[in-house]
Amino acid sequence: MIELYTWTTPNGEKPVIMLEECGLEYGLHMTDISTGLQKKPDFLAMNPNGRIPALVDRTENGGEMRVFESGSILVYLAEKTGQFLPTAQPHRAETFSWTFFQVGGTGPMIGQLHHFKSYAPEKIPYAIERYENETRRLLGVLESRLSDFEWLAGPYGIADMINWSWARSGLDGVDGRSDFPALAAWVDRIAAREPVKRALGRMKAAKEAASG
Amino acid sequence: MIELYTWTTPNGEKPVIMLEECGLEYGLHMTDISTGLQKKPDFLAMNPNGRIPALVDRTENGGEMRVFESGSILVYLAEKTGQFLPTAQPHRAETFSWTFFQVGGTGPMIGQLHHFKSYAPEKIPYAIERYENETRRLLGVLESRLSDFEWLAGPYGIADMINWSWARSGLDGVDGRSDFPALAAWVDRIAAREPVKRALGRMKAAKEAASG
Ligand SMILES: N[C@@H](CCC(=O)N[C@@H](CS)C(=O)NCC(=O)O)C(=O)O
Ligand SMILES: N[C@@H](CCC(=O)N[C@@H](CS)C(=O)NCC(=O)O)C(=O)O
Repeated sequence: MIELYTWTTPNGEKPVIMLEECGLEYGLHMTDISTGLQKKPDFLAMNPNGRIPALVDRTENGGEMRVFESGSILVYLAEKTGQFLPTAQPHRAETFSWTFFQVGGTGPMIGQLHHFKSYAPEKIPYAIERYENETRRLLGVLESRLSDFEWLAGPYGIADMINWSWARSGLDGVDGRSDFPALAAWVDRIAAREPVKRALGRMKAAKEAASG
Repeated sequence: MIELYTWTTPNGEKPVIMLEECGLEYGLHMTDISTGLQKKPDFLAMNPNGRIPALVDRTENGGEMRVFESGSILVYLAEKTGQFLPTAQPHRAETFSWTFFQVGGTGPMIGQLHHFKSYAPEKIPYAIERYENETRRLLGVLESRLSDFEWLAGPYGIADMINWSWARSGLDGVDGRSDFPALAAWVDRIAAREPVKRALGRMKAAKEAASG
C-alpha cells in the first residue's frame, strides 16, 4: 500500500494528481509544514531533505521503500503502473527534459519570487525584480512550447502533471494570463480533468478533517 | 553520433563526466555562455530553455534527437548504455530521488548564493545569508547520507555524478570542507576517478583551443 505525506502546496499537489490519474489506492497523510513536522526524525527517514512530498510503498511481504522529491515520485509511480511516461523516443527524452526543467527552473525560481514578494521581512526591489524576470522568462519557454503542442512531451503525462501547479502559481505571481495565453489554456485544460479535480478535492477535505 | 554543447560550469561538467564514465564517443562543442550563444535560434532548437548543457544524438538512418537539462541527459545516456542507473529497487528509486534532490536543491540554491555573493551589483546581506544558510542545510543532508554510505544510492552512479560538481562548488562557497568531512571525502573520491579527470581535462583543452 502506498502512503503519501504531503501538503496543499504546488509541490505537494503533483503526486496526488498522479495517484488519481493512475487510479491507485493510497493513504493521504496531510503534513502541515507550518508545524515543522517535516523536520522530525520520522519524516527525515522518509525524506532526508525534510520536505514534502514523501512516499512510502509497503509491499505484502513486509518490504518497505521510500521515494522522495516530487519528480522521483512521479517517475516511480509511472514505472509501477506503466502509465504517463512513454517508453519510446523521442517522447521519453522530451518527458524527462521537461520534467527536469520544472524541478530545476519554475519550482525554485517561483518559490524565490513568492518568498521575496510575500514572506521576506524586508522588501528588496532587486531580488523581487530578479525573480519576476526569471519567472516571466520561464513561463515564456512553456508558452512557446504550448503554442505548437497540446501537451509538453507527446501524450499527456508526467511532464504536464509536474509543470502544472507551478505554471499556475507563476501565472498568478506575475498576473500573466493574458501575456501567456497558450500556457493559460493548457493550465485550464489540466484543471478540468476529473482526476485533477478529485486530487485537489481530496486534499482539501483531508486538510479540513486534520485541522478539526 | 552524440554531440554535446556545454561549458566549464558545474551543470556543464556533469554530462561530460557521464560520457567519459560510459566510454562513449562524442563531439564536444564548447559554448561560451558569456557570448549569449545559448539564446540563439540554433541553440534554442536544442534547448528551448537557452542554457547549457544540451545534447543531440544523430543515428545512422538520419534520425536526430535532442535532450536538454543535465538530469535528463544523464538518464538518457544511462538508458542508452545500460550503465549507472540501477534497474532494481530500492536503488533505482534512491537514484532518482537523489538526482532530483540535486536539480531542485543544490543547483539553484548554490547558484543564487554565487549570484548574490559575486555578481549582484549591490551587496544584500539578507539574500547572502538566506542562500548561505540554505547551502549549508543542503550540504548537511548530503553529509549525513555519506556518513553512512560510500555512494548516494547504492553503487556509484548518476546520482553521484550529478551531485558532485555542485557539492564541490557549495563546499568552496561556504568554506565547508572541515564542517562536512564525509562529503569532502566523497568529493575527493570522485575527483580521483580516471573518467572524471579525463572529462575535466578534455573540457579545459577544448576551451583553450576555442579561445586560442
Ligand atoms: N524539489 C522538491 C521541493 C519540495 C519543497 O520545496 N517542498 C516544500 C513545500 S512546496 C516544503 O516542504 N517546505 C517546507 C520546508 O522546507 O520546511 C520537490 O519537488 O519535491
Ligand atoms: N537545471 C539546468 C541548469 C542549467 C544551467 O543553469 N546552465 C547555466 C550554466 S551552469 C547556463 O547555461 N547559464 C547561461 C544562461 O542562463 O544564459 C541543468 O541542470 O541543466
